[in-house]
Amino acid sequence: MSDVHTISVLVENKFGALARIAGLFSGRGYNIESLTVNRTEDPNISRMTIVTTGDDAILDQIEKQLLKLVDVIGVTELNGETFIERELVLVKIKATHEKRPEILSLVEIFDAKIANVQPEELAIEVSGHSKKVENFIKLVAEYGIIEIARTGRTAISSECGSTDKRMKTL
Amino acid sequence: MSDVHTISVLVENKFGALARIAGLFSGRGYNIESLTVNRTEDPNISRMTIVTTGDDAILDQIEKQLLKLVDVIGVTELNGETFIERELVLVKIKATHEKRPEILSLVEIFDAKIANVQPEELAIEVSGHSKKVENFIKLVAEYGIIEIARTGRTAISSECGSTDKRMKTL
Repeated sequence: MSDVHTISVLVENKFGALARIAGLFSGRGYNIESLTVNRTEDPNISRMTIVTTGDDAILDQIEKQLLKLVDVIGVTELNGETFIERELVLVKIKATHEKRPEILSLVEIFDAKIANVQPEELAIEVSGHSKKVENFIKLVAEYGIIEIARTGRTAISSECGSTDKRMKTL
Repeated sequence: MSDVHTISVLVENKFGALARIAGLFSGRGYNIESLTVNRTEDPNISRMTIVTTGDDAILDQIEKQLLKLVDVIGVTELNGETFIERELVLVKIKATHEKRPEILSLVEIFDAKIANVQPEELAIEVSGHSKKVENFIKLVAEYGIIEIARTGRTAISSECGSTDKRMKTL
């Protein structure tokens, strides 16, 4: 059974950390569906959120391999109902004057925002759970997507306290 | 002069593409401030948005090196006023009953959303321009940040039509 897993990895901000982690995935044949990386509240530490596919045995291997990398401080799988995941999408679509009211009502329903307006185009920012975001993209696709930029998922635990304290470490 | 640059890279969804690109940056000594990667409307093509620092000569080198990679379809720098950038942050903070009204008014001012509630904690989703998001993080930091997860920036051109058609290609 091949499942989608969301893995949160805390890494030291060392040169080449991303290359080593991405290299581990490709070298071992693990797929990366999406990846986001940015600093945390500690400027020396970054959090990577990696969405990957594979069965539980593969996930276990990935976690063990990640922990062997010197830059990696901790790894945790965020699974099931114990985490909150969000992504953000910028989508530029065709929007003639006639079509605008329809599009604006979709924007309202999805609690999205207009990011930019051109005579025949609208750029929309929509964020939320990946399923919501994908649903929005499907709905606006009928107007004609000009360009799309998605962040990929970021995620935190929905349980009390910090996930980081419960992270697997070596 | 060392500037921050936002580069949009269209890549074929080939195995190891991320590792090759991250490896190019670290191998050449180019820093990655943040990186997001996800599929576009074409499931065979992903867009990476990379925030990097360096002067114009370095940026020019990065673009040329990226275009030499087989997976890379096109590269464009998004600069100045011609692009829209957004990022999303999930931040879990301490929130006692007494502090909640203050925090909720910040949430309202920033057009943020409550993503989760625990007896003494709030998880907040905030999105927008990086400066707005950073300002929000600074303001809530005084309540005590438990955990933070940022997507990094994604960006599209604010000009008419697709950036991708104006991308540099080999």
